Amino acid sequence: MAKPLPVSPLAPAQFPEMPVIEGVTFASVEAGVRYAGRKDVMLALLAPGSAVAGVFTRSATRSAPVLDCQKKLGGAGDEAAAILVNAGNSNAFTGKRGDASVAAITEAVARAAGLPQDRVFTSSTGVIGEPLPHDRIIDVIDQLIAGQDAGAINDAARAIMTTDTYPKGAARSLEIDGRTVQIAGFAKGSGMIAPDMATMLVYIFTDAACAQPKLQAMLADLTDLTFNCITVDSDTSTSDTLLLVATGASGVDVADNAAFEEALFEVMMDLAHQVVRDGEGATKFVQIDVTGAASDAEAHTHAMAIANSPLVKTAIAGEDPNWGRVVMAIGKSGAQADRDRITIRFGDTLVAENGWVHPDYQEADAAAHMEGDHIAIAVDLGIGDGKKRVWTCDLTHGYIDINADYRS
Amino acid sequence: MAKPLPVSPLAPAQFPEMPVIEGVTFASVEAGVRYAGRKDVMLALLAPGSAVAGVFTRSATRSAPVLDCQKKLGGAGDEAAAILVNAGNSNAFTGKRGDASVAAITEAVARAAGLPQDRVFTSSTGVIGEPLPHDRIIDVIDQLIAGQDAGAINDAARAIMTTDTYPKGAARSLEIDGRTVQIAGFAKGSGMIAPDMATMLVYIFTDAACAQPKLQAMLADLTDLTFNCITVDSDTSTSDTLLLVATGASGVDVADNAAFEEALFEVMMDLAHQVVRDGEGATKFVQIDVTGAASDAEAHTHAMAIANSPLVKTAIAGEDPNWGRVVMAIGKSGAQADRDRITIRFGDTLVAENGWVHPDYQEADAAAHMEGDHIAIAVDLGIGDGKKRVWTCDLTHGYIDINADYRS
Repeated sequence: MAKPLPVSPLAPAQFPEMPVIEGVTFASVEAGVRYAGRKDVMLALLAPGSAVAGVFTRSATRSAPVLDCQKKLGGAGDEAAAILVNAGNSNAFTGKRGDASVAAITEAVARAAGLPQDRVFTSSTGVIGEPLPHDRIIDVIDQLIAGQDAGAINDAARAIMTTDTYPKGAARSLEIDGRTVQIAGFAKGSGMIAPDMATMLVYIFTDAACAQPKLQAMLADLTDLTFNCITVDSDTSTSDTLLLVATGASGVDVADNAAFEEALFEVMMDLAHQVVRDGEGATKFVQIDVTGAASDAEAHTHAMAIANSPLVKTAIAGEDPNWGRVVMAIGKSGAQADRDRITIRFGDTLVAENGWVHPDYQEADAAAHMEGDHIAIAVDLGIGDGKKRVWTCDLTHGYIDINADYRS
Repeated sequence: MAKPLPVSPLAPAQFPEMPVIEGVTFASVEAGVRYAGRKDVMLALLAPGSAVAGVFTRSATRSAPVLDCQKKLGGAGDEAAAILVNAGNSNAFTGKRGDASVAAITEAVARAAGLPQDRVFTSSTGVIGEPLPHDRIIDVIDQLIAGQDAGAINDAARAIMTTDTYPKGAARSLEIDGRTVQIAGFAKGSGMIAPDMATMLVYIFTDAACAQPKLQAMLADLTDLTFNCITVDSDTSTSDTLLLVATGASGVDVADNAAFEEALFEVMMDLAHQVVRDGEGATKFVQIDVTGAASDAEAHTHAMAIANSPLVKTAIAGEDPNWGRVVMAIGKSGAQADRDRITIRFGDTLVAENGWVHPDYQEADAAAHMEGDHIAIAVDLGIGDGKKRVWTCDLTHGYIDINADYRS
């Protein structure tokens, strides 16, 4: 990057306090993959017995590391494992050479850490279509292993950033049967965000115990409620990866445990919201509720049509309660709608009802809501019981600046 | 609008010479629907026997005038007819009051011009969701009828503009069986352009004769090759309307006439390209070819995914030959692709082949192409025989300026 981007005005006040997750250690170093003067590779080592679950982009042009991770998931978790992530180059659309880069890196990590190669998971994020200089990563593996530290998760969250303007972390702890279970995760993502099964890069660790198939099912369910409900720009990454590691070190089995699932949901939702809040050029965090749809799936289609509409997003940037553009987005979505049953609210203000502007509507009320940095748009279709809530950000000059001037 | 927008740098040098179409007259006046100091309503009167064909948006929230036109199409064409169009207010999402406005206007035109009401077609374009002040239109109908002039098509093309920065016209004439047939049309459209069966507003007139069902079928086929292959911002209007009028005054029947169909295609393509060239904020005219897809429909899906990707469009604005983003768009489109068979060209430069950058690729070659204002991106998927060509523009600060600052 030519120059650092200013931190998003929607960034959290600070990076959260992150707990140590027993069974996981981290290290991050500067390998110079693309960026200079910053750490750009992180390695996490996972204790024997760790279960690893993952969800990934469904892009037809997904990256070499994604394809490699998908092959390796689901195996028995008796042995130790590792996750290596680099920023600056996504190793996507790099053909057979991309596959060879993944093989070289995972083989080198396996040898240096004494692991089976099929327990080494990698991700790469950054520019698409350029060869990954994997030797630069292999050269720092010994340094990454020597530097392992259970408390180094914050540096790991920073090492995977690309156009992100702040590192994204979230953690929860809960008591189960008198014992404490910890969950901590981090994410990166700012543009090319319209996740399809996962988001950009997310890594979540817990010391809970859980059989891999149960962990995988829980992750897939929660992904549909969190990362699959956010969008920045409707563009789906080639590299979306979410890995969830359960080390089991707490001795608490959380299979089918509702309290654990709720805590994991909170961590995932928190990280998903942080990705939206760091949407390229974002100045407004936008929640869109669709109710009264023919089904939940139809509600999702409508909500995403609104969330991805450039005209809705630029109106929000301009603090214009332009509900006509919301109507337009509903109309084009392809999902069922009846013009004369649509109700629309901006914040607490009832704007339109029965297919037309409400007689008591005062534009000043909705305009006041638009001046804040948390915008709520609620649409009721009046057709059925389907509903969905999604999140996005506005579309501003900042997005153009970032994407017309930088190569990502 | 607060101030006039600068004319698009992609605008044609001048409005074309438009022929008189025997059987059609025009008038345009200032009714003050929303804009002041400009003509904003046009009325075309069509001779008895004129066949009227039309295609319209498939939006579920389509406007009252669109619904009214759809009801009226296909009737016998023995009587005279009229088309009235206003700019500044789209009469969309205006509930029963919107339907009443259409009824009031069409009744008034029918009475003043001595036509059956079901031969009066209207369109409205502009802000969505505000009541149409139809009395202002009814007040000028006598003036519109008194001012009818066969040579006043240029003013009509100007009267329907909203965020357009130039009027859009196209014409062709051809000899059939020793007689001359004329075709002339005009269009408006600049944003909210992702036509679905039609584009914003387009009116095309010919003195050819053609039975309405044949004319309708020809129009639908050509729409799929022209207006349904353009996009500015992926947002589909609630008001898209394309009306084609054949007055029959030339005495030449063009049903199943390939030369006429080719000339009509050229007029439609010309107008569709002019809409893209006036895309809000556009600085580059972009042609996207997809070949080697599993089917033409799949090629269309891929081409539109590329054409609508904010990341592809901002890269073009930044004159960056960022083919990685093209790969991303192919991957997310949902249509079939095999990463390792994809070939990509920017202009004449072969950028990528067999799923990776070509060994002889020099970025300077592609970068030079990107500096022009006509960009050609060609993708071959290497799977089948499906192909499609679509057109779009880049995504610039101008789009944000127009849509964050103005209500449309």
